[in-house]
Amino acid sequence: MYMAERIRKNMDKIPEPTLRRLPWYLSNVKLMKEKGEKYVSSTQISKQINIDASQIAKDLSYVAVTGRTRVGYEIDRLIQVLEDFLGFTNLHKAYLFGVGSLGGALLRDSGLSHFGLEIVGAFDVNPNLVGTEINGIPIYHSSEFESRRQQDGVYIGILTVPINIAQEITDKMVEGGICAIWNFTPFRIRVPEHIVVQNTSLYAHLAVMFNRLNETIKK
Amino acid sequence: MYMAERIRKNMDKIPEPTLRRLPWYLSNVKLMKEKGEKYVSSTQISKQINIDASQIAKDLSYVAVTGRTRVGYEIDRLIQVLEDFLGFTNLHKAYLFGVGSLGGALLRDSGLSHFGLEIVGAFDVNPNLVGTEINGIPIYHSSEFESRRQQDGVYIGILTVPINIAQEITDKMVEGGICAIWNFTPFRIRVPEHIVVQNTSLYAHLAVMFNRLNETIKK
Repeated sequence: MYMAERIRKNMDKIPEPTLRRLPWYLSNVKLMKEKGEKYVSSTQISKQINIDASQIAKDLSYVAVTGRTRVGYEIDRLIQVLEDFLGFTNLHKAYLFGVGSLGGALLRDSGLSHFGLEIVGAFDVNPNLVGTEINGIPIYHSSEFESRRQQDGVYIGILTVPINIAQEITDKMVEGGICAIWNFTPFRIRVPEHIVVQNTSLYAHLAVMFNRLNETIKK
Repeated sequence: MYMAERIRKNMDKIPEPTLRRLPWYLSNVKLMKEKGEKYVSSTQISKQINIDASQIAKDLSYVAVTGRTRVGYEIDRLIQVLEDFLGFTNLHKAYLFGVGSLGGALLRDSGLSHFGLEIVGAFDVNPNLVGTEINGIPIYHSSEFESRRQQDGVYIGILTVPINIAQEITDKMVEGGICAIWNFTPFRIRVPEHIVVQNTSLYAHLAVMFNRLNETIKK
């Protein structure tokens, strides 16, 4: 059916830029489905999001789906394959460390579960928070982390603590069995080589935006 | 005093990677100040955050501060210069568009104001939300945006709407005078060349993290 569908065996590690572009394709293709389309070509996606069509075809080849000549990709199938590949279809349990302003905000963002992340518990030492819950997510004392993690089988930790304890808490997460850290602090944490770190520094993005905006306004 | 302090005139546009690294240096240097240090060298920062010392010195030369031989950078001054440069010391007013799960979470994150962002209003069309406020921030009907923006003098818009209206709302923001868009949707928005866009797709970061974690667990 598909002319060149193939499973890439011994697949190389997928480049991070590709991984970051895939959600763009997914959101775009979902929109086309809403509009009643059945097929989409890389050229059509390219026009919408201003990325080279050959780049799109190359990126999509990583998820083991290729388009049919003249018709393009079957939209339903492309959505399914992309969502599976990106890990959005099954829930990954996570803990959140540090229920401050940003941490609390993330606990309230139920939208994350639509993209495969289920926060099942949070840790803090503040006696006003420990024992309460936010958005149905219980807040435990940090000392309970290791024993709970083994019970709950959680491998992802979200780091939203103040910078002065960011490294200390990172070390504890790793010792306690966390394998992937989503770091929202502006602190560059150090981890052993096998630990996955994804940095999302909102403040760094703000800095870039302010800087570029100042340049624009000066002109 | 400083051996090679100089204001870079006709300065080139600062590279985005540099802009993204500067907040790391800032958080690191703030920690050293807490520990009572007065001076810091690029070598010391380098050891902490695992970035080449020469890269750090080069990055810091963009903010027109250079270290003294053997002593390094004066910490108080470095913090001040970095915070000013990154735009964290004066508040930039912003509007938020789309008070869904993520939008509401961002409204509740008071921490953003410590990094120079003050959300002064939000827009939505949901009659249950319009007229209410979250964390002291009023929610207006989207139809009020243009007139309010002129009054309030707001140039920054935060985009947290569903993907099917992301482009439409973007176009309205730009028509209404917004110059910089902080895009939290997984949709790649199209804007005129002079508009600043900063993409923060939490879902793309999640996708990268899930993918890398699966690789780790397989090994």
